[in-house]
Amino acid sequence: MRWIWIDRFIKFDPGKSAEAIKNISLAEEHLHDHFPGYPVMPAALIIEGMAQTAGILICHAGGFKEKVVLAKITKASFDGSAVPGETLIHSATIEQLNEQFAVAHGEVTVLRPESNGDKSQTRHLASIELMFSHLDQNMSGKKFPEGQFIITDMFNSLLRDVLPANGKEFVNQPSE
Amino acid sequence: MRWIWIDRFIKFDPGKSAEAIKNISLAEEHLHDHFPGYPVMPAALIIEGMAQTAGILICHAGGFKEKVVLAKITKASFDGSAVPGETLIHSATIEQLNEQFAVAHGEVTVLRPESNGDKSQTRHLASIELMFSHLDQNMSGKKFPEGQFIITDMFNSLLRDVLPANGKEFVNQPSE
Amino acid sequence: MRWIWIDRFIKFDPGKSAEAIKNISLAEEHLHDHFPGYPVMPAALIIEGMAQTAGILICHAGGFKEKVVLAKITKASFDGSAVPGETLIHSATIEQLNEQFAVAHGEVTVLRPESNGDKSQTRHLASIELMFSHLDQNMSGKKFPEGQFIITDMFNSLLRDVLPANGKEFVNQPSE
Amino acid sequence: MRWIWIDRFIKFDPGKSAEAIKNISLAEEHLHDHFPGYPVMPAALIIEGMAQTAGILICHAGGFKEKVVLAKITKASFDGSAVPGETLIHSATIEQLNEQFAVAHGEVTVLRPESNGDKSQTRHLASIELMFSHLDQNMSGKKFPEGQFIITDMFNSLLRDVLPANGKEFVNQPSE
Amino acid sequence: MRWIWIDRFIKFDPGKSAEAIKNISLAEEHLHDHFPGYPVMPAALIIEGMAQTAGILICHAGGFKEKVVLAKITKASFDGSAVPGETLIHSATIEQLNEQFAVAHGEVTVLRPESNGDKSQTRHLASIELMFSHLDQNMSGKKFPEGQFIITDMFNSLLRDVLPANGKEFVNQPSE
Amino acid sequence: MRWIWIDRFIKFDPGKSAEAIKNISLAEEHLHDHFPGYPVMPAALIIEGMAQTAGILICHAGGFKEKVVLAKITKASFDGSAVPGETLIHSATIEQLNEQFAVAHGEVTVLRPESNGDKSQTRHLASIELMFSHLDQNMSGKKFPEGQFIITDMFNSLLRDVLPANGKEFVNQPSE
Repeated sequence: MRWIWIDRFIKFDPGKSAEAIKNISLAEEHLHDHFPGYPVMPAALIIEGMAQTAGILICHAGGFKEKVVLAKITKASFDGSAVPGETLIHSATIEQLNEQFAVAHGEVTVLRPESNGDKSQTRHLASIELMFSHLDQNMSGKKFPEGQFIITDMFNSLLRDVLPANGKEFVNQPSE
Repeated sequence: MRWIWIDRFIKFDPGKSAEAIKNISLAEEHLHDHFPGYPVMPAALIIEGMAQTAGILICHAGGFKEKVVLAKITKASFDGSAVPGETLIHSATIEQLNEQFAVAHGEVTVLRPESNGDKSQTRHLASIELMFSHLDQNMSGKKFPEGQFIITDMFNSLLRDVLPANGKEFVNQPSE
Repeated sequence: MRWIWIDRFIKFDPGKSAEAIKNISLAEEHLHDHFPGYPVMPAALIIEGMAQTAGILICHAGGFKEKVVLAKITKASFDGSAVPGETLIHSATIEQLNEQFAVAHGEVTVLRPESNGDKSQTRHLASIELMFSHLDQNMSGKKFPEGQFIITDMFNSLLRDVLPANGKEFVNQPSE
Repeated sequence: MRWIWIDRFIKFDPGKSAEAIKNISLAEEHLHDHFPGYPVMPAALIIEGMAQTAGILICHAGGFKEKVVLAKITKASFDGSAVPGETLIHSATIEQLNEQFAVAHGEVTVLRPESNGDKSQTRHLASIELMFSHLDQNMSGKKFPEGQFIITDMFNSLLRDVLPANGKEFVNQPSE
Repeated sequence: MRWIWIDRFIKFDPGKSAEAIKNISLAEEHLHDHFPGYPVMPAALIIEGMAQTAGILICHAGGFKEKVVLAKITKASFDGSAVPGETLIHSATIEQLNEQFAVAHGEVTVLRPESNGDKSQTRHLASIELMFSHLDQNMSGKKFPEGQFIITDMFNSLLRDVLPANGKEFVNQPSE
Repeated sequence: MRWIWIDRFIKFDPGKSAEAIKNISLAEEHLHDHFPGYPVMPAALIIEGMAQTAGILICHAGGFKEKVVLAKITKASFDGSAVPGETLIHSATIEQLNEQFAVAHGEVTVLRPESNGDKSQTRHLASIELMFSHLDQNMSGKKFPEGQFIITDMFNSLLRDVLPANGKEFVNQPSE
C-alpha cells in the first residue's frame, strides 16, 4: 500500500478547483479487512482522497512555498458505499484562502462502468468540507529544509498530465 | 497493513463508553509516505480509529445483531499531530442510540512515554463527532448471512480482555 | 497486495464469454517499482487478469468440479501501456472446451474517464490467447479435497453480482 | 513485495545470454492467494522474471541509452509448476537485436535441493519467447530525463556481482 | 510478508531431527530496508527460521497437544551473511525433551547455486542453541481452545511432503 | 512493513547507553501470522529491536565511520510475551568497544497503559547480550562508497529528537 488515495487529475483549474480520480481495486489489501468477504472503500480513505485533492490544489496556489495540514473536517456525510471495480471522482473547490488557513468544499461521485453501451452510471457518494492550516512554524523550522516544500515524485506524476508546462520543475519555479 | 486502527481496549462500559489504545509505530508502512522522512499518523486514520472504537461499542450494545456503518462525521478537529513512539487513546461515548441510528462523541489524547521517571506526558489531539446508521437492509439481505454479524477474530481478541466472560462465544450468545 | 487482478464482472455469459474490469490505482504498491516515478501496469499482470477472467468462466462452465491451470500463452501482444486512473476491460471468449483442455481468446481495452462530459475515452491495449489444462490428477488426489474446487470468498464476491441466483451456494450446487 | 522477480545473475555474457536465479519463498505474500493453502509460483510472474532477465541483458547491450518495453509474448508454455523451497533458473538468449526491436528466447529450469547428498534435482518448467521494443519517443521526451535511463539500485545490485568492474558507475558510463 | 521463515522440509526424522530450506529472495520487502541497496537476510530472521524448524519438530513429537514458545537463545553466532539468490538450510536436532521444556541445537548452511555445472557451493553460516517451554497454562486456558493446538494451513503444507501419510488430518489425529 | 523495530529514542547518552521505544500495534501484519488469532510480538523481532538500539549507539560512538554487524547473541532469555497495545522499552548499555568489536547488554521492559489513573504498569520481558563486529573490509571496499556510512532518513529521524544539534547533518559531520 501507498499512502496516496487519488490516481489521476482529470481537471485542474489553478487556485479554484480540481477533479481527481480514485480507482478502487481488489488488489488494495486494506479493502479485505474492513468487512471480510464484502470489500468496500473505507469512509476514512474517501476523506483522505478529498484532502489530497484539495491539499495539492491549495499548495499549488501558494507556489508550494508553505506546507499545509488538515486542521478540521467541518462536515462529511456519506450516502452509501463504493466497491472494487468502481471509480471515485473527487471534485474540490477552494472556498477561502488566506495566509492563516484555507477552506475547501468537496463532492464525491461514483463512476460505475457497465457493459451495455459506452455509458457508465454515476451516483453521488459524499459531501466533505475541509479546513487546512499552515504547518506550525517552529516545527517547520526545526525539521524541514527552510522555505520550500519537497513534493515527492508521486505527486509530481499526478500534476504532470494536467499541468504539462510545469513538468518536473514546478517545485523550484512555482507557476503562479 | 491491517485495516484495524485500535490495538487494545483499556476500558469498556457496555452501552455507555469505551477507551481504546492505538500504538503508532514506524513498522506501519503507511506512515512513511505521508510526509517522506517525517512520519506522522494521518488524520483520516485517527478518525477511523475513533469510528472503530465507537462502532464496536455500538455493535456490542445491540448484541451484534445489526451491522452499523459510518454515515456522517459531524465534526472533527485536530490540535496537532502524533508520531511513532507515541500512543493514541480513543475515548468514545454513546450520545444517542435508537433503531435508526447512533451518535457518538470522541476525544483523542496522546500518551508520550519519557525516560525520566514513571510518568508519561499526555496532550489533547482531536475531538470527533460521529453518526452511524444501520446497513441498508436490501444489501444486507442479499449479501450477508441473515440476522447476524460476523465478528472477525481480530475484533474478538480486542474484546477478550475487557469482557472476559464473553470470550469467543459472544458472537452467538450476545451479552444482555 | 492480493493476487487477484480483476475487480468486477460487468458481463457473464455462462460457457461463452465474460467481461471483467480491472481498476489501476497508485495504491497498488507493485506499480511503484516497475519504472520508478512512472508507474504503469506490468504486462505480466495484464496477462494474469485475462487468465483469471477466462479461468473463472471455464471453471464455472465445468460446474467448478475440476481445477484448471494456465498451460500456454499462445500469443500476447501489447499496443502500449496503461496507467493509474485508467481502467482495463478484459473480454474473454471460450474458443474450445473439452475434457482435456480449454482455449480462450481475450481482448483488453482501456477506459480513461475524462472530465468534460460523461464519455470516457477507450483504446485497445492487448490481444491474448490462452490455453488451460486440468490440474494433474495425482497431485489433485494427494493434496486437494476430492472432487471439488474450493472457490475463495474473493471469487465468490466477483460472481455474486453477475450471477445473483447463485450467491454463495454455487460451490456446492454448481449451476450447469 | 517488490516488483523484481529475479534475485541474482549466475552468468552474464554481454550482448549474448544471461542466467538469473529466482528463489521461491513462502515469505512472498502473493503466493498465498493463488490457490489458498497450496502455494505455487504464478505463471505470469515466471514470464515477468524472464522478461527482466532478458530486458537487463538487452538494455546492457545498448549501453542503457534506451529504455525497452515488453511488446509481445510470441509463445510461453509451461510443463508444470514450482513451489516454495524451489529455485527457478531463467536462461535468456538474445536472438535478434536492432534499433527497432529485440527478440529473446528463454528456458526456465527448476532446481530442487534435496537432503541426501550434495545434488539438487532439476526439471524443465517453461519455454518463453519475448519481443521488446523501444519506449515511444514522445512519451520518453515528455516524461523522462533526456537520453539516459535511470537504473535503480535494485538492478545495480544484480549486475554488481557478474560485472564487477562496472560497479555502481555503469549508469553514467555505460559499458557499450 | 508472512511470518513464516522456512519454505520446505527436506528431511524430517520424528522426535530427532529435521532439515528445512529457506529461500532468500529480493521479492521479500524486509530485505530492502536493512542496509538500503545491499540486501542481506537479517540475523533475527535466521534465528526465527531455526526456531520454526525446531518448534515444528518438537510440537510434532508431542502430538501437537501442547503449544511451545521460544524461552531462551542460549547462543547464536554468525560467520557472515546471506543474500538474495542464496538458500539457507536449517538443520535442527532435539537435544532434550521433557514435560517442562525442550532444547534444540541448530546449524545453518548456505547453498549458493552457480552456473558452471550442477554443483552448488555451500558454506557454514550460523550455530544456534534454543530452549523452548510450554505455553503458560492460565493463558492457554483462557484464550485457546482446550487441549489442542491449531496448526495453520501454512504449517500443514510444510509437513505434507515429508510426512505424506499424515496429510491434513494430523491435527485431529496426532501421530503416535 | 519496514525493517525498523524501534520507534523513538527516549534517552541517548553518547558512547554509553540508550533507551528506545517500540510500540506494538495490530496494524503490523507480521503479528497476525505468528499464532493466528492471538497476536504476540515475535521474540526474534525483540532481539532485532535491541540490536538496532545498540547498533545505532555504537555507530554513533564511532562517528558513523564504520559499519557494524551483529556477530553473536551471547544470551537472550524471555520471561513472557508482549501484545498489541503494549510498548517495549529497549535499554542498551555498551560494555566493551574497541576497533575489532563491541559488546552491549540490553534489558527489555514492557509498558502497559491502563485506564485508571495516569500510571502505566511495567514488567520485565527480556535480557539480551549482543556482540557486534565491523563489516568485512573487502566486501565494504567492493560494495559501499568508501569511508562513510549511509544513514537512512529513518534513522536520522530517530536521532533528531534526542540529538537536536546534530539534525540531518550528522552524516557528513560525525559528532565523534
